[in-house]
Amino acid sequence: MSVLVVGSVAFDAVKTPFGEREEIIGGSATHFSISASFFTSVSLVAVVGEDFTQKHEQLFHERKVDIRGLERASGKTFRWKGEYGYDLNTRSTIYTHLNVFADFQPKLPVKETPILFLGNIGPKLQLEVRKQVNTKLVALDTMNYWIESALDDLKEVLTVVDILIINDEEARELAREANIIKAAKKILSMGPKTVVIKRGEYGAAMFSEKSYFAIPAFPAEDVFDPTGAGDSFAGGFIGYLAATSATDEAAMRRAMIYGSVMASFNVEEFGCDRVMRLTYQEINERFRHFKEITHFEEILFERKTGSYKTV
Amino acid sequence: MSVLVVGSVAFDAVKTPFGEREEIIGGSATHFSISASFFTSVSLVAVVGEDFTQKHEQLFHERKVDIRGLERASGKTFRWKGEYGYDLNTRSTIYTHLNVFADFQPKLPVKETPILFLGNIGPKLQLEVRKQVNTKLVALDTMNYWIESALDDLKEVLTVVDILIINDEEARELAREANIIKAAKKILSMGPKTVVIKRGEYGAAMFSEKSYFAIPAFPAEDVFDPTGAGDSFAGGFIGYLAATSATDEAAMRRAMIYGSVMASFNVEEFGCDRVMRLTYQEINERFRHFKEITHFEEILFERKTGSYKTV
Repeated sequence: MSVLVVGSVAFDAVKTPFGEREEIIGGSATHFSISASFFTSVSLVAVVGEDFTQKHEQLFHERKVDIRGLERASGKTFRWKGEYGYDLNTRSTIYTHLNVFADFQPKLPVKETPILFLGNIGPKLQLEVRKQVNTKLVALDTMNYWIESALDDLKEVLTVVDILIINDEEARELAREANIIKAAKKILSMGPKTVVIKRGEYGAAMFSEKSYFAIPAFPAEDVFDPTGAGDSFAGGFIGYLAATSATDEAAMRRAMIYGSVMASFNVEEFGCDRVMRLTYQEINERFRHFKEITHFEEILFERKTGSYKTV
Repeated sequence: MSVLVVGSVAFDAVKTPFGEREEIIGGSATHFSISASFFTSVSLVAVVGEDFTQKHEQLFHERKVDIRGLERASGKTFRWKGEYGYDLNTRSTIYTHLNVFADFQPKLPVKETPILFLGNIGPKLQLEVRKQVNTKLVALDTMNYWIESALDDLKEVLTVVDILIINDEEARELAREANIIKAAKKILSMGPKTVVIKRGEYGAAMFSEKSYFAIPAFPAEDVFDPTGAGDSFAGGFIGYLAATSATDEAAMRRAMIYGSVMASFNVEEFGCDRVMRLTYQEINERFRHFKEITHFEEILFERKTGSYKTV
């Protein structure tokens, strides 16, 4: 099955303790689509300005991402600059220039798509897009900004999505609940059938009414630029489900691994640089490595009087 | 094999958002020994004051912990009071009265023990104890206070221990390295063959020269009092290794699960209350649950031209 993503395409500027770069092609739709393109066909809907040239489009063409839905408006492309602290866990935004993104009204090239991913844009827009399209599965990302400024709209869109993919802090804020297990349950009661919570260097967890699954992060020593890691995760996760046309628990668990694998590559270099060079062999090696670092045998312990025995 | 633990026995006072209690029997040696007693024979070496009566000893007798090494000195028992914030992740110490613990000179009842656990006491004392006893396996816990005030002593004792069990923050501080994978490698180079890093609600990770293992935490909704969780983890971990007389990678991985299981029970009530009532069935149910929430199948993805196939 193919995936349609609606989100942002941006020029990012990033400063980390290890280096600095301007004019990186970024944005939620970019990181998502490049990552998902390793698993399935992806169409992208976003807006850019006149400064986004054919040269910049090359990134999408290389990964066969369908960008017929990439609108070019008069003005400048969305620009964001962020700076990361020493441990890469703290990020400060230097500037956010919405530019053409401020008046973005997504125009969908199709009325139907098997899977729709609503990247991190305003919940009102997400809801409009959701209503315009027939689909089997809808996944959604959001952020603190919308939880704080557009909670009612966000709650409305949550009633019409299947999977919510957010981070730890956002989940706690959305549910107004410090305990992450309770927070996830509360969010499930808001609409989504599945809540995926990304926990950065601590891994990820997936909650549904009847099941719980959690994994550590890939043990990354060389985190270089965390920008886009969450969207790369979503791309691998949704891309895998689309490719295998499956949403049973076992498939969703493997999707969690592929999401983590894609995110782990994404952070190794600026922007999409590392992901663009990926091979299937590298992706599957990391999947196998995940199995290796999490596997243990179920041999239970029993202490009989005076003797120790494993059963 | 049996375990000898040297550490603290204390009267704790704890205030959480859910309740408050005084005169809880706590301390590193207490939580460790009660937890480990579910797996193997445990002897405890610690000091208490005259206010620690036979009534208080009952806790240890019930779990058949050998307290012949529990010295009674003139004066008062070590007393600590802590208060937890709303999300239970922040803790402030209201007071620490070392009392008889200030002059603690551990007197070992034996010259030999298969396994020695050096609970969180000063590294100088840990080193002295280590030198007094012949043993096959030594594990050690420490805390920020010692990393900051007695780093050289701590580094010396690290050269003569097999397993270091510490938390996330302590590992980063000890290694002066923000990336936890790099931090663990640096600590391995200081002496221990295995480094176990406890990450609270995010789980735990185990590092050795050739392997890495990571698990999420048990999904606990009802965290009531986190005091002693780390020592309960260590008790389950070391207790299991002792009981099965094994230190191969597979056994160490199962030990990580048993450690996490014991910690997950410990936090459900004040002090050792919940652990004291545990049954083997409850322990093994949680082990099984760990398998259930972490298991996924290794089915790799391959994208052939135009077709999607799992291999």
